[in-house]
This record gives sequence, structure tokens and C-alpha cells, in this order.
Amino acid sequence: MDQRVHEHAETLVDWSARIEPGEDVVVHVGEGAHDLGVAVAAALGERGANLLARYSSSEMSRAYLRAHGDDFEEDPEFEQALYERADSVLSLRGTRNTRAAADVADDRQQAYAGARQGIREARLDTDWVSTVHPTRALAQQAGMSYEAYREFVYDAVLRDWASLAEEMDRLKTLLDDGSEVRLRKEDGTDLTLDIEDRTAVNSAATVAYDSHNLPSGEVFTAPADAAGTVTFDVPMTIRGRRVRDVQLTLKDGVVVDIEAGAGEDVLASVVETDGGSRRFGELGVGMNRGIDRVTDQILFDEKMAGTVHLALGRAYDATLPEGESGVESAVHVDLITDMETDSSLEIDGEVVQRNGQFRWEDGFGV
Amino acid sequence: MDQRVHEHAETLVDWSARIEPGEDVVVHVGEGAHDLGVAVAAALGERGANLLARYSSSEMSRAYLRAHGDDFEEDPEFEQALYERADSVLSLRGTRNTRAAADVADDRQQAYAGARQGIREARLDTDWVSTVHPTRALAQQAGMSYEAYREFVYDAVLRDWASLAEEMDRLKTLLDDGSEVRLRKEDGTDLTLDIEDRTAVNSAATVAYDSHNLPSGEVFTAPADAAGTVTFDVPMTIRGRRVRDVQLTLKDGVVVDIEAGAGEDVLASVVETDGGSRRFGELGVGMNRGIDRVTDQILFDEKMAGTVHLALGRAYDATLPEGESGVESAVHVDLITDMETDSSLEIDGEVVQRNGQFRWEDGFGV
Repeated sequence: MDQRVHEHAETLVDWSARIEPGEDVVVHVGEGAHDLGVAVAAALGERGANLLARYSSSEMSRAYLRAHGDDFEEDPEFEQALYERADSVLSLRGTRNTRAAADVADDRQQAYAGARQGIREARLDTDWVSTVHPTRALAQQAGMSYEAYREFVYDAVLRDWASLAEEMDRLKTLLDDGSEVRLRKEDGTDLTLDIEDRTAVNSAATVAYDSHNLPSGEVFTAPADAAGTVTFDVPMTIRGRRVRDVQLTLKDGVVVDIEAGAGEDVLASVVETDGGSRRFGELGVGMNRGIDRVTDQILFDEKMAGTVHLALGRAYDATLPEGESGVESAVHVDLITDMETDSSLEIDGEVVQRNGQFRWEDGFGV
Repeated sequence: MDQRVHEHAETLVDWSARIEPGEDVVVHVGEGAHDLGVAVAAALGERGANLLARYSSSEMSRAYLRAHGDDFEEDPEFEQALYERADSVLSLRGTRNTRAAADVADDRQQAYAGARQGIREARLDTDWVSTVHPTRALAQQAGMSYEAYREFVYDAVLRDWASLAEEMDRLKTLLDDGSEVRLRKEDGTDLTLDIEDRTAVNSAATVAYDSHNLPSGEVFTAPADAAGTVTFDVPMTIRGRRVRDVQLTLKDGVVVDIEAGAGEDVLASVVETDGGSRRFGELGVGMNRGIDRVTDQILFDEKMAGTVHLALGRAYDATLPEGESGVESAVHVDLITDMETDSSLEIDGEVVQRNGQFRWEDGFGV
């Protein structure tokens, strides 16, 4: 087996999930993630943890959901009991076909998810971490050869996380202390975001930092208010449709105008979901230099160094002051803008990043 | 997908496990059993059952066990809780390599199994059923092409189970009413087994008959005593070693002599395990006419019509009078003898089967 698969597993178990001897660990193995499953099993065995492997098969889910009616039992007890007692849940994604569930009706999927809120909460209460094993299907979605895609994934995953966490902490401190973020680009972007009293999350791919994805490498917070215009020039797929060259205009925190080179109607339908879907629930800054290209997988794209993303919809609790609820919504749709050229990110009037370079980096010219 | 995979899934879910709407079903999917997993998921969805899929990967188990020390936590709570609440456990075996765990030390495997008695009991307390999806590795072990092996498996699995159950009930009644079974073959076999007060199990591949394997098709009971000589001319693999042409001699229920054309030392070590391993814990009569050849997989071989098997070691509780304990042992090793030629099976002095034909079958010549 490729040695990097073992390094991936060890990063996941040690840095990300911080597994201790005797912990009860559920591992979800995707259809195409078998090799990573084997490496994770070895790492868990070495650390003396208890392992229960689940099979995350999109084809089984599809078959089950299509055959089932719309009435699902709420939180089946056997599954709830499992996650309530688990210390960690490690999800090894890695599909063999990104469209495997394309013919399951949205309503059916939502009914299923809706009946499982308790199980979902129990799972999110554990030290859960989600990661991706490179498969041919994911390489295809990224428009890449399998070999090149594997290089890409391991560059993103096998970082010096401790040192990246330190660098990200600098940005977190600036955001925590700041009141206002301003994004400016020559393409017409000029957006002001109120972040007073919010706490940024240093998303360093470890539960120790309340960060649950490997790879990660972003600092994010939740704006309380937003005004201005912002373009999202990184193309992406939303609800199975291509979306590119988006321009949103906001007033009093609410989206008042949408334009897009493609997928404008998809965005319009996202925005119309509920009250929260018209607002930005997240401002994130990508800082993972191992991610140097767009692969149409949000887990990677939004972490790319030199990008900023804003999400329509739900805010993460960790960013909010105690007792305050931020944007609430059924959706959380990230949109990404490239800050590498003719761009700046200011906090309280000071330029913190220009053309993708932070002010503490060599080559930052004021 | 081959239509027979769906028929297999429906036989498993309906005839074998008797799944009802709302039941909590754990499905164990072997590395090579994905297709059957998909078909079972569809069948469970259709019946409105709740599904939790586990991944039964021999390669993950191997990696985990090799990396782990010999000290395993007793019955990890998260796993115990899952099985205690499950209504059914369906195991879809189907390995990609029958020797995948060949380099895990026996001691390690035993330590692992030994620490999980509570979980094992909880699983056996459910309506559990174990079945096999045909894989290339299993075809190879059987010495067959993949195509021919699939035909073989579906012939064995897709029976008219209700009608076979009726036929098997005739033999069960004779065994329940009888006191003594005598096996005779021209090769020197002459064995007398005391079955007074024992209850035979009609193993018709359904939990409704306390039968937990699909395929099944045998009637078995537990002898209280045995004397005489018996040959086992069906070759098999025991503990990874070939065993053939075995002849055992018993006195007062205990093996006193072992001879074998191959694997004599393996058998000697089985017999020396403990007090119970010197005795026969099971007498079984194969009645599945879909199984017409030896494939070196005990789940199939021992069900083959025209064979009788005897197991060294542990007896099944279901066969014993209330409160009585039969043979107790850490082992249960089946040995098979072919009754197709120059053979007879008598109950209380009456010939019930001659040369593989029962007395209620056409062609039975007294």
C-alpha cells in the first residue's frame, strides 16, 4: 500500500481525532475508501482503541431510500445508542460514483435526514472527523488523472498542521479583536462585514480546535451584518448544477440582487429557502497552501490559500457569543472568491492580506 | 444486477429472517458482498425496516488485530448497545481472499474473540442469519470457475424452502421419537449413537425453525453416547490444513483411535483441546439437493443431500432436554461422510435412508 495512505491514517487518528487508548471509535468506510479503512484500522489497533466499522455505501443508501416510503421511523434506537456511546466517529469518504444517488428524489432524502436529527446530534457530539480517500470518481469530478489527483489530495492532507495552526492563529486573533472586515477587488467587489463580538475558529483539522475536516486550513467567523457587492469567481457545482461568475449585492445583511454567468436560478432558489438563506452565515479565509487548484469539492476548494468564501445560510455556533443565535437556515452554501490578484482584505481599516499574501509573509508589499 | 441476487436477498429477508416493518436490522457486508448488500438494502427498504450497515472486512480486521496488543477491552459498550437493541443481524459473507487473515496469530484472534463474549451473546439473541455471496475467492477455494460457482450457490440458496422444511420434518419426527441411530457403510463404518430424549432441529434456513444459515437443509440432533467406528470420506480443510479419509473409533462416547489419509495430526490436536472435543456434539443429516458437490465450505458441504456429518465438540442447546447440558467444548469441528453408496442409516433398527434415498422417496428399495 502507498505509504501516504498510512500517513493519512496516522494524521487522522493522532492529529485530527486525538484518539486515546480504550476509546470507542466508529469508522465509516466509503465504497472506494477500503485502503484507507485498512490503514485506519492498523492505527486504531496500535493505539489500543476499540473499532466498529460501518459501510457507507451510496449504492446501498440509494437502493434503500428508493424502495422505502416517505415515512421513516424517528431515530431508530439501535443506531442512536451506538452514537451516544461512541467517543469518535471517523468518516472515510471516497465514492466510486459521485452521482450514485442521482435518482433518489430530494423529498425522500430530506424525509430520511429529517427523521434522524437525534442520531445526527449524537454523532456531532462525538469527536467526529470527516476525510476523503482519493478515488477515480473524485479525480474525474476534479477533471484530473487519478495519479495527479492522489498527489493533490496528499499535498492537502499531509501538512505540517502544528505550524499551520500557529499561522492561522495570527489571523484568528486579528478577527477576534476586530469589528469590521472589508473585501475589495478590482472586479467591483466592495463588501463590508460586521464581525464585532464574534469568535473566529482556527480550523486546523483537529477536534482540539473544534475543526472536524481533514484536510482543513481555514479561519472562519460569522458576520453579524453585511453590505455591498461581492463577486464569486471560483466556479462550483451546487445541487448538481454548474454555477460561475456570481455577483451578489447586499443591503442590511440581506441579498437584494443576484447575477451570475451560469446557474443564476439555482442561486435564486437557494436564497429563497428561508429567512436565513438570504444572509451570510460564514466568512472563511482559506490558508492551506497544499491546495493549489479548484477541484469542485467544497471540502478542498474553500480551504485553498488565497481564497475567501462566504456561505449563504446557517452560522456555526462556535463563532457566536454565548446565548446569541446567528443566522439560522436549512441551508449552508459556500461561495468562493479568488483573492490572488488586485484584491485586499482589511480588518478595521488595516490591510491584512493583499493579493493573497498576508502581512506577516515575505513578499507582502504595503 | 443478476436477478438471482435480488431473489437471494428476498429469500434472506422474508423466508430466513422474517423481517417485519419497523424492525432494527444490522447488515454485515463482506468485502466481496457489495451487490448482495445493495439488494438486501432494497428489500429492507421495501419492508419498511431500519437498516444499519456494517463493513465486515477481513483486511481491516487483520490490520487491527496485528497492530493491537493481546489485551482487549471486554465487550466495548457502544457495540454491545447496538446488538442488544437490534432485532436482526444479517451477515452477508463473501470474502475476496479466504486467507486474508492467515498471518494473524491464533492467540491474538482467540484473545479478541474471548473479550467479546457478551457482544457475541447479544448478537446470537437476535434473529440472526448468515449467508454467502458468491465471490471469485470462494470459487477458487471450491476449485470452480466463477460462473459455475455462482450457479452452484444459487442452486443451494434458491430452494422451495417451505416444501423442503416439510420433508425435513419427517426425519425430525423419526429422530425425536427414536432412541438409537446406527450408521453402516461397506467401508467399515458401524457406529451406534444414543439419541434418547434429544430433540432434532429442522434446519430449514429460517429463524422460525431456529435455523440461522442460508442455505441450510439439514436435520441435526445431539447424541448422548456413541460407540463403534466411522469413516469420513469427504475431504475438507480444518485449521488451514487438508484432511481426508478419516476413521475414528469411539468407546463409551469418547474417541479412542484416529486414523487419516491426511491431516491426522490436525485431528489429534482438535481432539485434545478439552474434555468435550473427544465427543460428538452433533449428528446431522444433509438434505439440500441443490448442493451436489463438495466445495470445501462447511456451510454448504454439511447440507449436501446424501451425506451425514458428526461434529467433535460443542452441542447446540436447542437439541438438549430442558436443564441438561450436552457436550461442552471450545471447538465444534464437523466431519462428513458420504452415504450415497453401500450405506444405510437406521433408527431403532429400521432403515430410514439407504444409499442416500429416504424411505419416503421414489426409488427407495428395501
